[in-house]
Order: sequence, then C-alpha cells, then structure tokens
Amino acid sequence: MIWKNTVNFIGCDAEYAEAEVVIFGAPFDSTTSFRPGTRFAGQSVRNDSYGLEIYSPYQDKELPENVVYDCGDLELAIGSSEKVLEQIRECTESILKNGKLPFMIGGEHLVTLGSVRAAAERYPDMHIIHFDAHTDLREDYLGVKLSHACVIRRCWEVLGMQDKSKSADGRIHQFGIRSGEKVEFDWAREGHTDFHPFTLDGLDKVLEQIGDAPVYFTVDLDVMDPSVFPGTGTPEPGGIDFLTAMRGVTKVCERVNLIGCDVNELCPPCDPTGASTAVACKIIREMLIAVTNRK
Amino acid sequence: MIWKNTVNFIGCDAEYAEAEVVIFGAPFDSTTSFRPGTRFAGQSVRNDSYGLEIYSPYQDKELPENVVYDCGDLELAIGSSEKVLEQIRECTESILKNGKLPFMIGGEHLVTLGSVRAAAERYPDMHIIHFDAHTDLREDYLGVKLSHACVIRRCWEVLGMQDKSKSADGRIHQFGIRSGEKVEFDWAREGHTDFHPFTLDGLDKVLEQIGDAPVYFTVDLDVMDPSVFPGTGTPEPGGIDFLTAMRGVTKVCERVNLIGCDVNELCPPCDPTGASTAVACKIIREMLIAVTNRK
Amino acid sequence: MIWKNTVNFIGCDAEYAEAEVVIFGAPFDSTTSFRPGTRFAGQSVRNDSYGLEIYSPYQDKELPENVVYDCGDLELAIGSSEKVLEQIRECTESILKNGKLPFMIGGEHLVTLGSVRAAAERYPDMHIIHFDAHTDLREDYLGVKLSHACVIRRCWEVLGMQDKSKSADGRIHQFGIRSGEKVEFDWAREGHTDFHPFTLDGLDKVLEQIGDAPVYFTVDLDVMDPSVFPGTGTPEPGGIDFLTAMRGVTKVCERVNLIGCDVNELCPPCDPTGASTAVACKIIREMLIAVTNRK
Amino acid sequence: MIWKNTVNFIGCDAEYAEAEVVIFGAPFDSTTSFRPGTRFAGQSVRNDSYGLEIYSPYQDKELPENVVYDCGDLELAIGSSEKVLEQIRECTESILKNGKLPFMIGGEHLVTLGSVRAAAERYPDMHIIHFDAHTDLREDYLGVKLSHACVIRRCWEVLGMQDKSKSADGRIHQFGIRSGEKVEFDWAREGHTDFHPFTLDGLDKVLEQIGDAPVYFTVDLDVMDPSVFPGTGTPEPGGIDFLTAMRGVTKVCERVNLIGCDVNELCPPCDPTGASTAVACKIIREMLIAVTNRK
Amino acid sequence: MIWKNTVNFIGCDAEYAEAEVVIFGAPFDSTTSFRPGTRFAGQSVRNDSYGLEIYSPYQDKELPENVVYDCGDLELAIGSSEKVLEQIRECTESILKNGKLPFMIGGEHLVTLGSVRAAAERYPDMHIIHFDAHTDLREDYLGVKLSHACVIRRCWEVLGMQDKSKSADGRIHQFGIRSGEKVEFDWAREGHTDFHPFTLDGLDKVLEQIGDAPVYFTVDLDVMDPSVFPGTGTPEPGGIDFLTAMRGVTKVCERVNLIGCDVNELCPPCDPTGASTAVACKIIREMLIAVTNRK
Amino acid sequence: MIWKNTVNFIGCDAEYAEAEVVIFGAPFDSTTSFRPGTRFAGQSVRNDSYGLEIYSPYQDKELPENVVYDCGDLELAIGSSEKVLEQIRECTESILKNGKLPFMIGGEHLVTLGSVRAAAERYPDMHIIHFDAHTDLREDYLGVKLSHACVIRRCWEVLGMQDKSKSADGRIHQFGIRSGEKVEFDWAREGHTDFHPFTLDGLDKVLEQIGDAPVYFTVDLDVMDPSVFPGTGTPEPGGIDFLTAMRGVTKVCERVNLIGCDVNELCPPCDPTGASTAVACKIIREMLIAVTNRK
Repeated sequence: MIWKNTVNFIGCDAEYAEAEVVIFGAPFDSTTSFRPGTRFAGQSVRNDSYGLEIYSPYQDKELPENVVYDCGDLELAIGSSEKVLEQIRECTESILKNGKLPFMIGGEHLVTLGSVRAAAERYPDMHIIHFDAHTDLREDYLGVKLSHACVIRRCWEVLGMQDKSKSADGRIHQFGIRSGEKVEFDWAREGHTDFHPFTLDGLDKVLEQIGDAPVYFTVDLDVMDPSVFPGTGTPEPGGIDFLTAMRGVTKVCERVNLIGCDVNELCPPCDPTGASTAVACKIIREMLIAVTNRK
Repeated sequence: MIWKNTVNFIGCDAEYAEAEVVIFGAPFDSTTSFRPGTRFAGQSVRNDSYGLEIYSPYQDKELPENVVYDCGDLELAIGSSEKVLEQIRECTESILKNGKLPFMIGGEHLVTLGSVRAAAERYPDMHIIHFDAHTDLREDYLGVKLSHACVIRRCWEVLGMQDKSKSADGRIHQFGIRSGEKVEFDWAREGHTDFHPFTLDGLDKVLEQIGDAPVYFTVDLDVMDPSVFPGTGTPEPGGIDFLTAMRGVTKVCERVNLIGCDVNELCPPCDPTGASTAVACKIIREMLIAVTNRK
Repeated sequence: MIWKNTVNFIGCDAEYAEAEVVIFGAPFDSTTSFRPGTRFAGQSVRNDSYGLEIYSPYQDKELPENVVYDCGDLELAIGSSEKVLEQIRECTESILKNGKLPFMIGGEHLVTLGSVRAAAERYPDMHIIHFDAHTDLREDYLGVKLSHACVIRRCWEVLGMQDKSKSADGRIHQFGIRSGEKVEFDWAREGHTDFHPFTLDGLDKVLEQIGDAPVYFTVDLDVMDPSVFPGTGTPEPGGIDFLTAMRGVTKVCERVNLIGCDVNELCPPCDPTGASTAVACKIIREMLIAVTNRK
Repeated sequence: MIWKNTVNFIGCDAEYAEAEVVIFGAPFDSTTSFRPGTRFAGQSVRNDSYGLEIYSPYQDKELPENVVYDCGDLELAIGSSEKVLEQIRECTESILKNGKLPFMIGGEHLVTLGSVRAAAERYPDMHIIHFDAHTDLREDYLGVKLSHACVIRRCWEVLGMQDKSKSADGRIHQFGIRSGEKVEFDWAREGHTDFHPFTLDGLDKVLEQIGDAPVYFTVDLDVMDPSVFPGTGTPEPGGIDFLTAMRGVTKVCERVNLIGCDVNELCPPCDPTGASTAVACKIIREMLIAVTNRK
Repeated sequence: MIWKNTVNFIGCDAEYAEAEVVIFGAPFDSTTSFRPGTRFAGQSVRNDSYGLEIYSPYQDKELPENVVYDCGDLELAIGSSEKVLEQIRECTESILKNGKLPFMIGGEHLVTLGSVRAAAERYPDMHIIHFDAHTDLREDYLGVKLSHACVIRRCWEVLGMQDKSKSADGRIHQFGIRSGEKVEFDWAREGHTDFHPFTLDGLDKVLEQIGDAPVYFTVDLDVMDPSVFPGTGTPEPGGIDFLTAMRGVTKVCERVNLIGCDVNELCPPCDPTGASTAVACKIIREMLIAVTNRK
Repeated sequence: MIWKNTVNFIGCDAEYAEAEVVIFGAPFDSTTSFRPGTRFAGQSVRNDSYGLEIYSPYQDKELPENVVYDCGDLELAIGSSEKVLEQIRECTESILKNGKLPFMIGGEHLVTLGSVRAAAERYPDMHIIHFDAHTDLREDYLGVKLSHACVIRRCWEVLGMQDKSKSADGRIHQFGIRSGEKVEFDWAREGHTDFHPFTLDGLDKVLEQIGDAPVYFTVDLDVMDPSVFPGTGTPEPGGIDFLTAMRGVTKVCERVNLIGCDVNELCPPCDPTGASTAVACKIIREMLIAVTNRK
C-alpha cells in the first residue's frame, strides 16, 4: 500500500538505469482518416497484459527480470502533428543516447516518423523493416504531408537525407502490403522500396541480406487479417494470420541488429471483444522476449 | 458546395446513360428468421467504401471511370414481401432493358428472387451460381413460401417455368453449403441442383461446363466463415476464408457471361467492429473490377 | 433436475387452468421502418425478470402466486403480416373465451391489431387507451396498410366496424404523443381520437369518463424518453420519465375494466446496457401486480 | 433510378440557388482530447434523420419545402487544424456572400472558429450565444492554441480584433457551463464573457438585451446531460434535459438576428443505442423550423 | 521519462506519509447475482478521471494538492469471499491506524463489509449512511451469507457485536431504497434500520441527529436512475438524478464526522457509452473535494 | 398455449426417464480472473440453438428424437466455490446413477472439478481428455486453490486419490495448450500429464491407446483461436480453427467410452456479434450427434 499504483506492461518492471529496453506509448491519432481511437492502445495493452504470462511456449523462454522499463504514455500535444513528432523524436533520441532500445507503442502509424528521425540521425545507414497492410507511400493525403498514409514515404525521405552517399532506395523492406493506390504500388516496384506484397514470403532472405546493418522495425498490426485483428481503424481483409505474424516478428527481433521498433494501429474501441488487444499484447511479448534473450 | 451530397460506392460515379453496370440496394429483411438488420447493408458499404482504393493489387487493375452507376437504395414497401419483390423485379427489368448489368446489394437473401424473376424472363436458359452457407431450399418456412430460407427453391421454380423445354435441374450451381435440413440436402443431391457442399471446390470445372450461357450470380456473404464475416444474421461456422471467397467471385465475374448479380446478407449492426462491412466492400470492389475489365 | 427448463416472467408460474392472466409473446418486427429487433423482447424480459422481486414497494403489494400463466412466445409466420395477425387474434380470442386476461408482449406495435380484432369482437363497445410517442395514425406507410405506423388507424377502423351504432371516434384515448405527420395530428384533433399529446396529463379525468366500459390498454414503451428507454427502434426525445410512466400504467390497471393489454416496442439489441429491458420488466411487473390485486 | 443517390438531412432538398439556409458538415476531430469520433456526426444525422417528420408538434409548424440546402460534409485536410479552419472559413464566407444562413454540423467544437472568423469579418459587431458544458476558455491546451478546449477564447480574440472600437467583452453569452478550470471560471466571471453557468436561466433577458444585433449561435450538444446525450467525447454529468435544450435553441432561432450557427460534438460511435443521434436530429430540426418560419 | 507510469485518480498524487485520504480499489465481483464486471471500476475511474478538472464549480473549491494518496487496486484472492474481506479489512485497518481516511472504490457491494469490520472495531459506536437502490438486507442469498444482497444485514450484525451496550438498530440510515423482498422492507421498517425509501428526503434531519458521531458512508451508485447510471449489474429504474445524488454525497462529506467511505457497483462493461464512469468520477471528485476542504 | 414455455437446446426434448444424455448448465464464473460472464453461456446456447438444424452435413447424421434431455441451468450458490462444486457433483452423480451421460455446459472451467469428482468416484480408472489454450495446472492462484487456473491440477489430484494403485500421471491428455507459466509446462512435461501443446496432433494415437477405458472429456472452447471464438474471458491468440476443433470433438465422442463431458468458457457478453455462441452451439450439436449415434 505504500507503493504508488504503477501500471507497466507485464514483466516490464526494471528501473530506467538498469533497463536495456524502454517502452513508451505515443497516444496520437489526429491524422487517422477513417476511425480514430489508436490513442487508447498503450493504456489497453498495459491493462490487459496482466492476462499474459512472461513465459513463451513458442520460444520456450521467459522475459528476464529487470531488463525492460515502461515509462507509460507520453503526454502529447494533441492536434499538432509537428509538435507531436518532435516530442517523439526527443524521447527516442534520449533513449538511444542512453544506449537502450526504444520500443514505441502507437498510436497511428505517423508516430513512426518521429522515432525514425531520431534513429536515422544516429544510424544514417539504417534499414527499415515494415510490416503493414498499406503501402503508406502517398506523396500527400488530402493536401497534408504529415499523415499516416504517407509515413513510409516520409521515412524514405529521412533515410535519403541522412546518408547522401547512399540512396534510401532498397533500404525499406515492406511486407504484407495489400492496399494502396496504383501509383504507390508502381513507385514501390520501381525499386524505391524492397517490396513484398501480400505475405511475409522472402523475409528470411531479406534478413540475411541485411546482415548486421542497423534496423528499425515498424509493425502496423493491420498486416494481420481482420479476422485475427479487427480492432484497427481501417480493417483490410486478406492479411496474414496470427502465427505467421508472430513468427515473423520473432524472427526479425532475434536476427537483426535492432536499434529501435514500434507496434502501432491497435484501436481498442474498434474491437469490443478485446481479442485485438490480446493479439497486440502477445506480439509485443514475443518481440520483447526475443530481443531480451539475444546474446 | 454547389453539388448536392451524392453518396456512391467508391468510384461508381458514372451517369446512368453511360453506365455499363448499375448498382442498387434492396434494404429488406422482413423474413429474416434470427437477427434482422441487413437493411442497413447498402448504406454501410457506400459509407465505408471510402476507405478503399479503386486499385486491386490482386487483379492489378483499376475500376474504370464512368462505367458504374449507383442509384442508391430502393424505397421498398417494408412489411410486404410480394410488393417488395415486384419493386425489385421492375428495377432489374428496367436495367436489363437498357442493356446494363444489374448489381444488387441486399438485404436478406429473399431479394434475389425479385431479380431472378426479371432475369429469367429475359434469359430463359440462364444458370444461377450460388455461394452460400445455407441450402435455402425449403419448400416453406413456418408456413411462409416467400422466405429467405426458401429463396433458391423459389428460383428453381422460376427457372423451370421460364423454359419448359429445359428442366431447371442442374442449372443452379451451389457452392459452400454447410447447413440445412436433411431433406434439403437430399433434394439437392437427387440432382435438382448441382451441389458442391462446404467449399468452392469444383468451381473451375463448372465454369467451363457453363460456357457462355447467361449466368446470374448470387453471393450470400455468409459463405465465408464467421471469423472473417461475423456481421450476418445467422453466423455459420466452418466457412471459407476471405481469399478463397475473393478469388471465387473474381473468377466467376471474369469468366462467365454474367447478366446479373447480387451480394447479400451483410448485417452491419451484428458486427460492431466494422470488419464485416470492410469484407463486403472488398468483395464488391473485386467483382466490379473483374466485370468492368472484361473484354 | 426432473423438471424441464421452464422460462417464465418472474412469478408467473400458474398452470393455465387456474390462471387469471395469460402472458404471451409476439416476436414480430417485419414492418419496423428503422431498426428492427423487437422480436427479441419476450425472451429478454423473461430472462432478465429474474433480477426483479415480486414485491412492489410502490404499491406495497406482491404478485400473488398461481394467478399468472406465461405461455412463452408464439411461433409466428415471420414475413407475412396477415398470417401473423391472425395467429395473434386466435390466441387472444382463445384466452378471452376462457375468461382470462390476455397480456401480450410485442414485438412491434402492429401486433396490437391482432389482439384488438379479437377483443373488439367480444367487446364491441370497448375503449382503447394508448400510450405512445407516435400517433400511428397513417392511412398507409410506403403503400402498406399493415404497418406499425398505421396500427392505431387500423384499430379505429376495427372499433367502427364492430359497433356500427357507435362511432369509433373518441373511444381511442392517446397519451404522450409527440411525433407524427401534420395530417395525423390534424386527423386526431378533428375528434377521431381523444388526443392528449406530450404527457399523461388528463389521464385521471379520462379514466373517470370511461367508467366501467371495457378497456384494451396498449403501451408503446417509447412513450418514455430515450434517456430512460433508449432500447427501441425509433427513439423519440422529449418523452415522459419512468416514474410518471409507471404510475400511469398502474393507475390504468387498477381502475379500468381491463379486458386485454399489451406492452411493445422494446428492442433489446438497441440497448447494450440492458437498462431498457429492466425498465420494461418493471413496467410489466407493476401492471401485473395492479391487475391481480384488484378486487 | 435515374437520379443519383442524394443524402440530405430530412426535408433539406432545396437547390442551392433558391435556398435560404445552407447545411454543411465539418467532419473534424483531430484535437479531441478524450474520445474522438465526432467526424461521423454529419453522416449519422443525415442517415438517421429519415426517422423524423418535417412537422414539429412543439412549434406546430413544418419545415418549408425548397428552403434548406444540404451540401454534405466538406472534404477536410485531416490532421492539419489550420488548413481545416481555413476550409471552413471559406465555405462560411461564400454562403454569407450569397446571402444565405450557414448552418454547420461539427465535428468537434474547434470547427466553430472557422465559421466565426468568416462571420465576424462580415459582422464585426456580432454576438455569440454559446450553449455548452465546458468553458472552452483555456489559453492553450498541452501547448496547443487551436484546440477544442480553447475555442471560445479564440473566438473572443477574433471578436476583439474585428471591431477594435468595441471590446469583445460581454459579447459572448455562455449558458449551461459546468466544467472547466478555476482560472477559466474566474476569467469568465471577470466580465470577459456574459457567464450563465449550469442552466439556461437568464436566456430570455439576454435575448432581449441583444436586440437585433447579429448573432452567431454555437451549440455544443454536451450542454445536455449524459442521460439524454451520452454520445459525446467527454460526457459531463449535471446538464440540462432535452426539452429545456430544445426550447432554448428554438427561442434563440426565433428571436435573434441569426447570421450563422453550428451544432457540434455529437460522437456517434460513443452511443451504440443511437439515442444521441436522435436527439441531435431533433435539435437540428427544431432549429431549422424555427429559422425558416420567421417573418 | 525517468518516472514510472503511475496511474492515480486525477489530482490524488500525494505521498502516503503526507496524505489525509487514501484511495484503494477492491476489484471483486464474485457474488454478483446478475451481470458481473464491477472489478473493472477502479481501473476505469482512474483512467477516465483525466477528463475531469480538480475544480468543482458546484462547491467553488479545488481538490488540494498533496492531500489524497491513491494506492491503486488491491490484488485480491478472486473466488474466495472470506479471504477477500480479510484483505480489505486489513487494508482499512492499517489506513485508520495511520490516522487517515480510507476511501474504497468497489467492486460489488459486499466489499463494504471488509471495511466496516475494520471501522467498527475502531469506532464501536459508529453509524452507517447507506445510499442504494436495494435493501441488501437478506439473511442469505441462495444459501450464501457473504453476498452483495446481504451486505447491510451483515454490517448490522457487525455493529451489534462491537458495542453490545448499544443496539445496532437505528444506526444504519438507508436512503433511496426502491427494491427488495417484502420481508426485507418489513424488517427495515420494524426499526432495525432508519429507513428512507425512494429518495434522499430526510437526509438533512438525519445528519443533524447524528451530530458528531463517527460515520461510515457507503454509496451504491445504483441509487441513481439507470438513465443517469446504466453501467451497473442490476439497473433499477426509478432512482434519483445526478444532481440530487451529487448534492447528497457532498452534504454527507461536508457535515459528518466521516471515518471511512466507499463508492461501489460501477460496472464499466455494462455501459459502452462511458457515461456511467463519468458519473462515478464526478461523484468521487465531489466527495474528495468536500472531505478535504473541511476545517 | 397450454404448454409452459420450455427452453431446451435444439432437439433435446426427451423426457428424463427415456433420455440417454442429460444436459445441464453450470452458470458459475466467480473465480474468473479477467473478464467474467460465462454464467450466461447456458442461456445463450439454448436461445441461439434455434438457428441450428438437427442435421449435421459433416457426419451426415441427425440428432435422434427422445434421446437427449436438457434440465436447464442449475441454481447455484453464487459466491461460494465449494458449495457450487458440491451442487455440480451431486447433479452429475445422480445422472450417472441413472445410467445416463452427463453433459455439462459451463460456466468457467472450475465447474469441471465438480463433475470429475462424481465421475472419478464411479470410474476410478478413468482418463480425462482436455482441450484448452491454458495448462490450468497451477498449484494455486493468488492463494486460492479452487480456481479456474488450477482446475486440471485439482482433477489430477482427484484421479490420484480415487485409484491409489494407479498413478494419475499420464491419465490426463492435454491438447492445444499454448499458455501457462514455465513451471506448469515443466510439470506437465515431467510426465504428470500426457502433454500435446499447440494443436490436436497426436489425438488419433491417444484415442487408440486409451482403448475402452472410461473417459471424461472437458472442452475449454478457448482452445480455438480468438478469430473463431473471441467470446471468452481470456482470448489466447494462436489456437486451432473451427473445423479442426469440430473434427476433434467429434472423433473423441465417436471413439471413446465416454462417461461424462463438459463444454465451457463461452462468455457471451464478450462477443456482441454472437459468432462465438454460434460456434459453441455447433460444437455441442456435433458432440451430441456423435454420442447419440454410436452403436
């Protein structure tokens, strides 16, 4: 009773100083074009994670104690995308500076841009692995450039700006994509991104090619089919199933030189059954266990 | 601002005169035996279709401009099945007379009877391809002959009446069926319908056999599993998945001599996640793209 | 364990032979113009009535044992209004013939017409007391005469036909009405009905005037404000509160020569909180206690 | 069938040229601090308004034909408050220029600022009547000045800038307020606004004082109690009831020299019963009938 | 970022040592007879309290800083009522021992018994003020004595045991009661409790009579009408409105010698609109402001 | 009308005396650790089973008439786990004594312990086949031994106590398990149970090994993936699909010497689409058809 009411993701009870991984929430959904509500994702996964164990029978490993710190949700300047991205960039930068791994829980997908700005500054040659149903490659959306629908295009620009000697082309690896405008698909296929539509097929080969280059990993949970994950603003039928997704994220976290990551687009009010939050919790747990058990 | 607020299915903005395909809604659910609400399907798919693009990465084609017209929902005589069927028949007849393809969005499955009456009059030798979880072959339901549970039996009678030289037997091709009374399954298996329970297996062969005979295509969306499509009055576990359904409808629309079609039994209030409406939207989009890109 | 699973409204466990009041459900909503679902009302009030006690502190009386029989929901010919009304008429007639009070739970308001047909045949000089938000006085609705929107107009015709010596005018007493077309309000105000819009004001005087003439009492629960009773197909803001409604129905049941009654338009799927079902249960309980405690 | 599917608020079917009142929706909720979703309000009130009649028994008047035009929802630059406000300002300005009354349906309350900017430019001496649960008088919210929580403070600044000879103080009349920070209440009570907390008491006197000065009327529907109107982002218990609200808005629309108005903060996904949308529809209908029946 | 994610009720950020009031949650609902879910109340009111301000315009006072501590929800032995009550008793006892006011957030009403056991031991002459829709005076419920339906009867026994010189009769003051079995109403009216059914009428007089005797205050939120507060397991129509409830609890907290209190029976999953949680938050805030501003 | 309102699972209309199988509900969820509500499962499956036919196209068999009796839900001592288990034990014992097969519908999984106590007393050498997502093998949960999280561990103890000559080890066959603490997985793998995690692989071989030993079969429906079955207290992603589950339960019911069974953990309020209830209904129907058609 003499401790205050601290709410973490299950098992993430390290102190900041000792932590290797730092979770923070980015409760932002102002540019969502259809159904908003991803701002509640951080709160939901923390609350519902208490139904999980810290043991994964898939990996046959546990989340180690005192390794992950969860600082809760950032208090963001709701309504101003530029300010919000700056707040996220600063937070990520500070975690990186302290030699820890930033693990962000969105919010809508635009939040990735804030983290990527900080990460790319530190790791100009970094790659991005991107799981998503949507290309997110628009030049702008209804005249707005800072939109969830454009976020990977913006990230591509950031990569290009950071390391001028090296094109951004081919350093973004997209998987699971099944929705977008024709012009986006064409742009991707011209080689601007390393494009793997519909499934995660080819992931092994890509991981091999990347080698030990630094990798930022962004997971839009709507890469999964709405049967598995209906709790998202824009459900996109035809996605991958849970086990495929879980094995995919585990693989990435085990094998690459991960320098930052995020999991986004869970919209809890869109799924009153709570199953989508359970899916998000388990994806996050498996990522944390994989990352913290690497040698 | 000087245009009135027109609400179409995405990309269906042709004028009537120039259109090749005409969408209309049939917001009727008076004979639904379990959970009503399919009357809201037309409105829902129109509203939510704005989350879709007109490009299909599956077919790598776009919905062409100025080819599909959407006249909205009919204003039906709610509570009187016979009047409603007559209103639908008239609408379909008029579209056929103008040399266009009628594309109806139900409503419950009984609405198909209205369209089939008009189509069979014009094309007495036509076939029906029927995707569904349920046989819909009852002689009557609680003493009522005009019921969603009897609609394919009624269609069989219509086919038989139109072309007396040719039995209706074998001209209705049923796929995906997994629910019904024993007597219905027996009746189907006696050869009254071309019966393919549980899955879409055999579809290719059937399409080949049909050749270029005129085909009316009726899709009861509950052919899909409730995991994919819970938003229907009578969810029937054990159905096909989204990709199988999507490929099936695409194939039919690409290959047959399609003279009319409908998509029915989406019940939006039954699925608060909106995922079922998203599934229906995408099925409709793929059908439209397939139909309008045929040579 | 040796008794089958019998589901009654709380306390309504008499055998048919000994009962003074007979409850039956009429699960019909085929002519509902906006949101269907009243068909589930009977089932819902029976299930949720177990949260009630048989004691009313308002009346300081209990529901007596062995006085009310509940035969469950009729199995209606869904989709055919005329057949359904005939089934209801027969059921009501048979209860009346056995000298018992028919107490119907709708369903949409059209079901009242079936009961009124039976009651008016037996009691040609009967009055109708009608609590409702809506006039229900249309000549027809979208070309359909058997519609919930026309039900009181149809009842007025029935009254007129039964007792030709006596006009139906003035024998229908409407309370709480706050919605309808201008032509309906005008028709009522011309004296065709005894019209008391907005509230129950004037009820005492009307009860006095009616004296011991036979009375059929029909309660459309949407007479209450949606804050109290949102669980109805067409919520109509501006209604009366629960205590006013409860006192009103109690008063009618205590004072008039009641020969039949119904409570309708509860639509359980429209109110996920269950509060509307709780309101309906309590209205029914108070009516039953009032009726069964009369000398 | 040869008409496209036009979706208006019930009875608002005038052509633009002939209209006296122009409805437009502003589907924006990017600065909402708690539960977003007001973007769906315009669509919802249009769809559900078909359950209403054009006759008001309260005013005993009908909405006249060919007097109100509904241009649907604006297509806003989601995610950029400044662009959105400019789009709204332009739309309002254009309606005013054509001598018509702009009637905006929000969206969150920030949208009012766009309209007020246009209105105040044309009518520098105008007053604002403001019904709300919240003061909306913050200097900024989490560092953001363009926020729903600051909108009336911003409007006060606009009024002050337009007519420098006349202070903005006292020209904003606030009613029903029951929530805010102490500093906001203090600022209001210092005379910056004409402050009437908790209820609409004093409205008659204020209307008299305003006389025929031009008035912009902004109605935050959460002025009503959550029992009546739960469908809003931040339900605030202790509000006024429906009849009080309806009579209040009617009175304002009948008596003042109305030059613009809006109704905002309906959040349809927050109320699955649909009762809140029904309340909003009726408030809008009564305002329209009052405004269009003035001499 | 270097602070852990602490989740308190708004403004309750004191350290334990300095606090005058200590909030704790009792997430228990195992004896709920109808719809469970009150276990989520503590979490919900904490999360949603961020939509509140610490200023009450009703009292024109603020919640002072560093005066209330919130230790979160107890981790209870779910499934074992006796263990749970002992955990609650211990917690309350320890708070009382430290000279602070225990403020418990239920959970179902049975949790009150745990707190009352601790309080009565310390204050054998204490009174209980009880706001509720239900008598809660059953001897047992389905053979179980530790049930929410019996909790006040159990409290009466506790009071009697603690101070044998003084009967428990008349020391429990019940307000708002409108539901129970006849035998419970009779037992109360025989003088075992100070019984004020239906409303809060008589509260002023009771407060005067109690004088400065120690008082435990237990608020079952279902004392309010379901229109205001549908989010509870057993909605009971006919209750008091929000303003009456709020003024009632404020009055008690301002005037009596309060030694402990609880607020219970909010069931968040029963009200998807969130309005009930908003009501609970505001009731709690007003109680806290009243208690902490006493001299 | 002269029959009372009897509510059975579809087709289960035998009299007790003639029945071979007896269904009873155990509406208990007091130890549920996350979201309660399984108490409503029995009521829901009975009500919704009317959407099913008694014919299974999968088995091409019908449920025979007059073979299954459904006595409804037990009236349990809510809040006292020990009393509840004793009530269930007595009910099961009495069915077994009458030479019938007990078929229990939970409720949470703890209810299995009551049935297993009765069954193991009569059949000390019996085996248990257990389909589940969770190990349910904890020694205790938050200090409570009678918890859903410990139920299989308790059953193992029961088996061991009944037949001391034979260890309980290896007589519990667990399938589909994918969640639990490491210590539970280790304990199982040490040979205490016959452990088949993740899927039903190996079921055929196990059925062969069991031969004609008596078998109690307990199906926790959350063995299925939340995409199929979200309506459960603790959705656990990664489960088996419907057809696999259905074939698995059918196989067990056809092949083993079944002496008792239960189906549990359906939580209807957790799935507003009703799809989970439909899944449960069909699993139960297939089990009943398989069991009643054995020679």
